[in-house]
Amino acid sequence: MRNLKLVIEYDGTNYRGWQSQKNVPTIQNTIETSLSRILNHKVRLIGSGRTDSGVHAFGQVANFKTDSSIPTPSLLKGVNSLLPPDILIKEIEEVASDFHARYSAKSRVYEYHIWNEAVPSVFRRNYFWWIREKLEVELMEKAALHLLGWHDFSSFQGSDHEVISPEREVIKVGFRQKGSELIFFIQANAFLRHMVRNIMGTLVEVGKKRISPDDFVKIFKACDRREAGITAPAKGLFLKCVFY
Amino acid sequence: MRNLKLVIEYDGTNYRGWQSQKNVPTIQNTIETSLSRILNHKVRLIGSGRTDSGVHAFGQVANFKTDSSIPTPSLLKGVNSLLPPDILIKEIEEVASDFHARYSAKSRVYEYHIWNEAVPSVFRRNYFWWIREKLEVELMEKAALHLLGWHDFSSFQGSDHEVISPEREVIKVGFRQKGSELIFFIQANAFLRHMVRNIMGTLVEVGKKRISPDDFVKIFKACDRREAGITAPAKGLFLKCVFY
Repeated sequence: MRNLKLVIEYDGTNYRGWQSQKNVPTIQNTIETSLSRILNHKVRLIGSGRTDSGVHAFGQVANFKTDSSIPTPSLLKGVNSLLPPDILIKEIEEVASDFHARYSAKSRVYEYHIWNEAVPSVFRRNYFWWIREKLEVELMEKAALHLLGWHDFSSFQGSDHEVISPEREVIKVGFRQKGSELIFFIQANAFLRHMVRNIMGTLVEVGKKRISPDDFVKIFKACDRREAGITAPAKGLFLKCVFY
Repeated sequence: MRNLKLVIEYDGTNYRGWQSQKNVPTIQNTIETSLSRILNHKVRLIGSGRTDSGVHAFGQVANFKTDSSIPTPSLLKGVNSLLPPDILIKEIEEVASDFHARYSAKSRVYEYHIWNEAVPSVFRRNYFWWIREKLEVELMEKAALHLLGWHDFSSFQGSDHEVISPEREVIKVGFRQKGSELIFFIQANAFLRHMVRNIMGTLVEVGKKRISPDDFVKIFKACDRREAGITAPAKGLFLKCVFY
């Protein structure tokens, strides 16, 4: 059996997230259907993690096993020709038999896109959270730096999805600005459900000066979801890449 | 009667161009319907020019007359709340009664977007022409400079849309590169139908070294549409702004 690793870019706007579900279009379903057609056997992908409805990816990773001997460049070309234009397989490579897209992952990087302008942007409407009030990025950066290291992220986990251990290690965090585009990036060993969107929602409160960076730290340390701000919209979130 | 000038941004992907047509969605129709609803009278817009099916705009300009005394900020807010998210009125201002979006225009600026990469881009699929072969931008620039000034642009006009005078004045022309994004910009007093897309199609032939910059000049001087290259896809074209 060959073990094949895929790197996938997708626009999540028209999908109900990554994870296969009955009767609704998901990224996983769509790719599995195309691969199954080419390989003539049922394909079940293992993804590095789920992305929610409307969330995008520049570099989601998945793997699956196959007995087919089709060369990877032909498979890549074939599957992309069957996929809709909002999903693209960027790479396919053969990996060791014990490679597992989820369990082998060392860390993930997410980006969150904000359009900080008085007027919205037609071309960014599906990819940016539009915030018209001018954000104080320096305050947001100051608050965000407290996320670095091993911490209990309960304050930022989806309230209906508590996990046994809410501890995660944030390795890198920061902001990039290009004109009115503000990009938040965060790398961690793994993420809790809605973690980036909940962090973002609370950081935006800091940027609007509704709360201070110190308040942000108190909310974070409270380890209680009810303390934090709103969940930022899915459409601004991108799974940037996964490291192994 | 007040004469109101609109500046409009739109994603042309889901429209059959600017110009009103029966039974198909166009940008002009959609805005006229929204304005008519708010103003309680039939509105007929005068646009600076047509854009084709699938072509986008950062700053299309239109005007119309009304007896309504509604303040422009309220009208702006009202009409944007009725418009779909792929059309945005960025500005509304009252202008002199003789202002005419088409005839008063001194010049227009178009941009053409190329994604020059080995793999396509999901997020650019509706806004860029994907060309996988590496383009020689310096050769394209060299050819494009010959467009400057007053010339007969017959070689680059849509073959089914001949006009009485095919002379236009190109004021500025050039390329900007950001990574694998290549942006062609061209400012002219006015444009013939398909002119930018036909120029682009032929410049890409230069970039691929199928023809030389000198061949480009010969094609241009031939004043014969049959000499030029293909028409570049509509989706890469943006009406950037209109000067008055």
